[in-house]
Amino acid sequence: MPGVIIETEGEFAGWRRFDTTDTFDALIGPFYFRQDENGRTRGAFRAEQKHMNMGGRMHGGCLMTFADIALFQIAYQEMEGSRGVTVQLDSTFVDGGYVGDLIEATGEVVRAGGSLIFVRGQITDEGRTLLTFSGIIKRMKPRG
Amino acid sequence: MPGVIIETEGEFAGWRRFDTTDTFDALIGPFYFRQDENGRTRGAFRAEQKHMNMGGRMHGGCLMTFADIALFQIAYQEMEGSRGVTVQLDSTFVDGGYVGDLIEATGEVVRAGGSLIFVRGQITDEGRTLLTFSGIIKRMKPRG
Amino acid sequence: MPGVIIETEGEFAGWRRFDTTDTFDALIGPFYFRQDENGRTRGAFRAEQKHMNMGGRMHGGCLMTFADIALFQIAYQEMEGSRGVTVQLDSTFVDGGYVGDLIEATGEVVRAGGSLIFVRGQITDEGRTLLTFSGIIKRMKPRG
Amino acid sequence: MPGVIIETEGEFAGWRRFDTTDTFDALIGPFYFRQDENGRTRGAFRAEQKHMNMGGRMHGGCLMTFADIALFQIAYQEMEGSRGVTVQLDSTFVDGGYVGDLIEATGEVVRAGGSLIFVRGQITDEGRTLLTFSGIIKRMKPRG
Repeated sequence: MPGVIIETEGEFAGWRRFDTTDTFDALIGPFYFRQDENGRTRGAFRAEQKHMNMGGRMHGGCLMTFADIALFQIAYQEMEGSRGVTVQLDSTFVDGGYVGDLIEATGEVVRAGGSLIFVRGQITDEGRTLLTFSGIIKRMKPRG
Repeated sequence: MPGVIIETEGEFAGWRRFDTTDTFDALIGPFYFRQDENGRTRGAFRAEQKHMNMGGRMHGGCLMTFADIALFQIAYQEMEGSRGVTVQLDSTFVDGGYVGDLIEATGEVVRAGGSLIFVRGQITDEGRTLLTFSGIIKRMKPRG
Repeated sequence: MPGVIIETEGEFAGWRRFDTTDTFDALIGPFYFRQDENGRTRGAFRAEQKHMNMGGRMHGGCLMTFADIALFQIAYQEMEGSRGVTVQLDSTFVDGGYVGDLIEATGEVVRAGGSLIFVRGQITDEGRTLLTFSGIIKRMKPRG
Repeated sequence: MPGVIIETEGEFAGWRRFDTTDTFDALIGPFYFRQDENGRTRGAFRAEQKHMNMGGRMHGGCLMTFADIALFQIAYQEMEGSRGVTVQLDSTFVDGGYVGDLIEATGEVVRAGGSLIFVRGQITDEGRTLLTFSGIIKRMKPRG
């Protein structure tokens, strides 16, 4: 996976993040990912003011963006060496997130087929579920 | 609707936008809205590099954020004087958006009930559909 | 499309339906389809007691089944000569349907790609919207 | 829960099912439910020819109907003494089911709020996942 670096300092030392500037990912991130001891993907970031809506709760768009990025990280092994695009992402908002909280994403690959990968997951805030999501990634045929 | 200002200059003169700083809306926007001659909500923004993913296409998170904000603008009249939260937002990604393009959102209130408002819509890029979405807003009881 | 016959009598004379017995389609149908003057697919059936839940309203499962079948009929032209399977169907229930009512389905192909077809639609009951739906059909490669 | 009986014979002896005739539930069921040793709801039925589509696989409408009914059974405790309606049901079809197979549904209440109950689940066929679903139940205010 090109463009990924391992954080060396701070709360997320040892976690990977995209090495990117001047993109949507850079603007609202960084979001961090790593594999846990069981090989399952875990995503995390610390909620900042910039992630909040005008009511002081985490913006739904922030949650969905985190989910969309997590989708590919959860499907990490199935995607190895190939590219893909999200074709569907269904989001259910169950609670609100706040500044300073640790926001985490986990999930599972329901099925990885030849052309489509089905993923489900959830985003939590200090243990409270904020968002559940279900997504489909379509594998892209390699160029060339 | 407090916190809304009318743009006075440039491409979106006459359109309204949120008067906000230091929020997610401010970070990735501004997104512009207005009512067309038939009273239907139209949203728009000009795609910038900051809205792109690492592959040079508009980030799914940007599209979903625009959809989430448009949801409430489309339900503008039904929401008048009350607040609400998104409880569901289903997104189907049908095509890619690019820097410099005019991105637009339109939609319809399918039904406005006493507690839930059902909205459908689409985001287009110069006429090409990028995203279709379907969402549910839950009305919040006024604090008091 | 093999297995389709044109109804010759009654309310749906001139409409097509599946020529099937001993299937789920036969059990809960027949559901009728035709193209309107603009070439757009229209589905319809007359609500019977067998379509109702224990509360006397049309069962959500009946609405979703009608939507699933309509999905393929709406994508009729794009599917010509090929087979497909539903990979995603999102359903929003906005109102209740009742015995004796004319239930109709309409919709549009949002995009027909090489492998996926995106469809949106709605089911109405005498003009009232009962269900909005959004689905994805995956084309199956021909056997052989 | 009125209208429920406990099956006394056959494969599903000890499971509960709706005591209903002349409804959609009766037409395509019976579907069986019970609580497992941990109090979690488990649904099941034996796939018959009547559940199949014209291609010999379980009809998507059958799977979604089973999911819709399971939704309320999974939320069994939270619904105790009250009624509700499905407002959203998102379905992802991941594999096909066949005649003679044991079809099972399980799931979890993600959150039970004052007006909305969020449920996720899956339907399996002899261990293979056929459908994942995510739904929202809206509590109905008691009449009277």
